[in-house]
Amino acid sequence: MPIDLSRAIGAELPATEFSWSDDDVILYHLGIGAGDPPTDPRELRYVYEGDLHVLPTYATIPQFSMMMSMAMIDGLDVNLAQVLHGEHEIVVHSPVPTSGKVTQSGRITDVFDKGKGALAVMEIVSILEKTGEPVFTNRASIFIRGEGGFGGDPGPSTIDEPPDRAPDHVVESPTLPQQALLYRMASGDKNPLHVDPGFAAFGGFERPILHGLCTYGIVGKAVVDHALDAQPEDVASFKARFSGVVFPGETILTRIWDEGDRLALVAESKDRGTRVLSSGVIVRR
Amino acid sequence: MPIDLSRAIGAELPATEFSWSDDDVILYHLGIGAGDPPTDPRELRYVYEGDLHVLPTYATIPQFSMMMSMAMIDGLDVNLAQVLHGEHEIVVHSPVPTSGKVTQSGRITDVFDKGKGALAVMEIVSILEKTGEPVFTNRASIFIRGEGGFGGDPGPSTIDEPPDRAPDHVVESPTLPQQALLYRMASGDKNPLHVDPGFAAFGGFERPILHGLCTYGIVGKAVVDHALDAQPEDVASFKARFSGVVFPGETILTRIWDEGDRLALVAESKDRGTRVLSSGVIVRR
Repeated sequence: MPIDLSRAIGAELPATEFSWSDDDVILYHLGIGAGDPPTDPRELRYVYEGDLHVLPTYATIPQFSMMMSMAMIDGLDVNLAQVLHGEHEIVVHSPVPTSGKVTQSGRITDVFDKGKGALAVMEIVSILEKTGEPVFTNRASIFIRGEGGFGGDPGPSTIDEPPDRAPDHVVESPTLPQQALLYRMASGDKNPLHVDPGFAAFGGFERPILHGLCTYGIVGKAVVDHALDAQPEDVASFKARFSGVVFPGETILTRIWDEGDRLALVAESKDRGTRVLSSGVIVRR
Repeated sequence: MPIDLSRAIGAELPATEFSWSDDDVILYHLGIGAGDPPTDPRELRYVYEGDLHVLPTYATIPQFSMMMSMAMIDGLDVNLAQVLHGEHEIVVHSPVPTSGKVTQSGRITDVFDKGKGALAVMEIVSILEKTGEPVFTNRASIFIRGEGGFGGDPGPSTIDEPPDRAPDHVVESPTLPQQALLYRMASGDKNPLHVDPGFAAFGGFERPILHGLCTYGIVGKAVVDHALDAQPEDVASFKARFSGVVFPGETILTRIWDEGDRLALVAESKDRGTRVLSSGVIVRR
């Protein structure tokens, strides 16, 4: 069904609520590879309720089911098999608490015409009940294959190449063979693409792939641990483009350029030498 | 405080209820090392709701908090720092369903005088709401250090040595460095002994140890997968003695003797060559 811009842009979904506890945060952290080595005090802060610190990418969890339902908004009715998560950005207005409840509102802010497909930008703002203030905002760019060519604005280029010099940090993050199995339990993203070999083959993959937002979390953690002195509270925002898949068990290699108030980054599968995350930017608080 | 046999034996706790879903079962299975390799169809049945099979040791989860509270029963008031989980037995009356609700009753069936300590035997029967029938029974033998010598029955010897011949199966089960972190989230057993290096040192361990019931689950899975053709429904009962600790990251080596209707087993830390589970017996259904 063709895009109906007049209906899609600005369309809003009913507000949703989401609550989480320290157990949910710990499970999420285990889902993105925290806890190894388990006796490192810096790792312990991610996996033990004694002195729990929350990685900023936990912000992608409360909004997830709302993000999925927005892909089916009126005027944008698409088949989920057509969509790809193109880019993701989180703005962390204040550090993510270890537990909380948010009320979330979401809308389509833009639909760009990329020729081969449409790029819909969804924005979900999460208001923390305790403070009444926004705690984080998610912006997801969803590429809808075959829905371009409707005569719309192609939108700005969002390619953000890293500096033309050697990176300041190169971090290797091994993933577990069962990483996607763990992340799907931690995130609630039960898409069979991440567990069912038959479904993955149907999607053109030789085996189930890691969730894009799992890769995003792993890379975000690599930056926090190696370029931000393991201070997850120092991340004000993080955006990146999904440019390739990770197979569970592969090692993700993240290159980081420290540019002062911002960090540029790219990540690849070390095993296959292919880019998995590009145009990455983390802004320090 | 000394053991008061007249009050302890037969003492009952108020009935408790416990409900679980397929998500809880999958998380438990991941907690005992399932899902590697993730594309093996036999592993998939433990970690994917599409065709979920439940390992019999899931029976240890619904009863866990009741087992802990029974250690503090009237007439048996002990410091939790004094107790060791000595032995554990599950009787699986019918295969554990992927989701369910049980009502559980528990009592102390025996308190034996082992000289250096007392051995309290707790029995917890779990009745499945859907059928009104017992689905599994747990028997936990808890050794209470320093509480022996009260003039009681020493009880039967429960040492069950394996046959004096080569085992029929030898299975290696690697554990993850973060296995205890994952198992504590999956089981609800939040004892800091399994995560906090300072607490572990206070208990005399060089670093946090794996949960005994995690080792029990890993060994049970090894037997099911290698001696019971990956048919978890074929286990009628499983008992074993905890004889040593496992450190997360170590490989557990299980030796299995197929004796027809029963399987004898012992397990050791391959890394240190020390026995971790002994007198193991699994009876086929």
